[in-house]
Amino acid sequence: MDISKYFDWAATSPADPEILTQALQESLEAGANPSAVHSEGQKARLSFENARALAAKVIGVKPEEVFFTSGGTESDHIPLLSLLNREADSQGRRGSIIISGIEHPALREQTAVLKKHGFEIITVNPDKNGFISADSITEKITSDTLYVTVMAVNNETGCIQPIYEIADKITEKTKGKRRPHFHVDCVQAAGKIPLNLNYPGIDSAALSAHKICGPRGIGILVLKKDIKPFLTGGGQEKNIRSGTENLFGAIAFAKCLEKYYVPLNFEEQKTAVKNFIESLKSLPNCELVPAIRADTSDSTQKLFSPYVLQAAFKGIPGNVMVRALDAKGFCISTGSACSAKKQNRPILAAMNISRDIQDTAVRFSFGPLTTSDAIAKLFVAVEEVCKDFL
Amino acid sequence: MDISKYFDWAATSPADPEILTQALQESLEAGANPSAVHSEGQKARLSFENARALAAKVIGVKPEEVFFTSGGTESDHIPLLSLLNREADSQGRRGSIIISGIEHPALREQTAVLKKHGFEIITVNPDKNGFISADSITEKITSDTLYVTVMAVNNETGCIQPIYEIADKITEKTKGKRRPHFHVDCVQAAGKIPLNLNYPGIDSAALSAHKICGPRGIGILVLKKDIKPFLTGGGQEKNIRSGTENLFGAIAFAKCLEKYYVPLNFEEQKTAVKNFIESLKSLPNCELVPAIRADTSDSTQKLFSPYVLQAAFKGIPGNVMVRALDAKGFCISTGSACSAKKQNRPILAAMNISRDIQDTAVRFSFGPLTTSDAIAKLFVAVEEVCKDFL
Repeated sequence: MDISKYFDWAATSPADPEILTQALQESLEAGANPSAVHSEGQKARLSFENARALAAKVIGVKPEEVFFTSGGTESDHIPLLSLLNREADSQGRRGSIIISGIEHPALREQTAVLKKHGFEIITVNPDKNGFISADSITEKITSDTLYVTVMAVNNETGCIQPIYEIADKITEKTKGKRRPHFHVDCVQAAGKIPLNLNYPGIDSAALSAHKICGPRGIGILVLKKDIKPFLTGGGQEKNIRSGTENLFGAIAFAKCLEKYYVPLNFEEQKTAVKNFIESLKSLPNCELVPAIRADTSDSTQKLFSPYVLQAAFKGIPGNVMVRALDAKGFCISTGSACSAKKQNRPILAAMNISRDIQDTAVRFSFGPLTTSDAIAKLFVAVEEVCKDFL
Repeated sequence: MDISKYFDWAATSPADPEILTQALQESLEAGANPSAVHSEGQKARLSFENARALAAKVIGVKPEEVFFTSGGTESDHIPLLSLLNREADSQGRRGSIIISGIEHPALREQTAVLKKHGFEIITVNPDKNGFISADSITEKITSDTLYVTVMAVNNETGCIQPIYEIADKITEKTKGKRRPHFHVDCVQAAGKIPLNLNYPGIDSAALSAHKICGPRGIGILVLKKDIKPFLTGGGQEKNIRSGTENLFGAIAFAKCLEKYYVPLNFEEQKTAVKNFIESLKSLPNCELVPAIRADTSDSTQKLFSPYVLQAAFKGIPGNVMVRALDAKGFCISTGSACSAKKQNRPILAAMNISRDIQDTAVRFSFGPLTTSDAIAKLFVAVEEVCKDFL
């Protein structure tokens, strides 16, 4: 893959070959089951716990708060599903769940399933710019509220959500009462913006290795309070995630966190995306999504991850732009890969973005190896497509 | 790891370094998201579907019946959890589930969770030799029965269960009525005994890569009928298993199936385990579990996987034997690694094995690289431990 033409990092990041190769070697040398009692098992256990300790150190939490899972989806599921252990009342009601209208399908679709199991699902939509306000969340909290979930960075717009303010306000509103669990999907935030997962009031957070140059099939759930698991089995990961421990994945993820968790090229990328936006603004048919993203002042841009940019090109359907750029060797996408086959754009719809813009919007996403030079070449290609099609 | 001293293959098999290294290389060369629309995504998709096709061909099912999961636990969970989509009646009842008393915790523990959600759980225990009879299953089937689960090979005793007869008798008993889903956990059977997952009446089967020289973190669910998933998200794997596709894992698993699914050393291992049993019988304090395993005639031995052997050593607690052999460099275990930390032996208890035997029983498990010479050396070590401790 030509990384200089790859702008779909939010779907998956090209893996770091050195880290993965080394992690595979290490895992082959500790090939026993980390739960086995014998010396080979203990060797594998030590290697696994070293990976956990490294991941915890980088993230800034305690090792006992780091649980390895099979990926972002499972990390999102575990705290949510644990609510199913709650007894229903005589009417079959189990309590309410507050979810932002811009969550990943792992949460959006799964809460829809839970609705059938006695949970009231309260969806809080963002403003037209894609931001969830802390007040719009807390005003929905009642004595019934068990769970609140708001992602840190949206995967389609790059909007940074006010997770710390939400945590504070949930705590404030529920002082002396039952505090709902607050979960933060950080899959698009880790390695992209500074994060403090040790912030009081954040009860759990989901991370995925393959978004940060690691392998697919491994994730982390940061979990800061005791929950009762709904999915059970062999009892690995202190019963939170059953299934034989994925040593290769854990080692590789921990090493990727060490190298990439603090965004390597943050300042350069901020400048590069500003320049990209300025260039896009010169195209008469281009509209940034949300529209305020066109304002390249620091005060506006700091509201967004510089690694995700959504833009619509009037007259060119999103999938046509994707294919036209693909023909020139550039990889971008319309929305999330997880929704690529569905033709709708639920996140843009939640922002009340017009159908026209939804249909013509594409996502450019960037990573630690993206250079400003590569983005400049991407712009030339986008400009050519616009000229060809208009 | 010294494979000639490793006898804990049922916990995990040492991975095939060549297959894993090559699979990693291939997955690095197809580094995009297989669900992405662009050419790099399509390249990854092609590679992923090739892995599925190879796995399907080896197993003898259709590619569209192969679903990649995160492992054996998840493969066991998916069909079971789909029952949760069933509406409860006015008393909150959802129907009954028949489970053998010797299933893996992924099923045993998860059905216990489902019990709280309106399912009646009917546990059918094996006879004293560890076998589940087809009749003992079918006599529990009523019009309420939704699901039956019996594993193909038990992970602690090696007992081969009559899954084809069970499938037939379920079909026969429910002719013209609703037929319950029949799930078979094949985690300890794949690569150990001949398997026919295309047999009529087997609706789903679970396989795990790391039990057959593949990586941890990847499994297969063979699924032969439409089910509605309970766990949802991005909708990958035709909605059956959400989460970004693990290309490395899928390639490696498919190649391991190709190499190891038909047991490489089946005939040699049958002879080697018979000789091992004969040697063990010469130790005055050794008792095979179940006791009939001591009969080395073909007609008895064919009832067991030759890759798993359980034996008790009177006067030597199981964990003492494990540690004493470990001190000599040999890896064995008491029971399943997934229950290693729990001190009980639920499978032996279900067989009504005495507490004494339970406490002194250990598992020897073997793999495709085990040689008769290595087993002979293992016996010498076991004999030494018995002499030292008695």
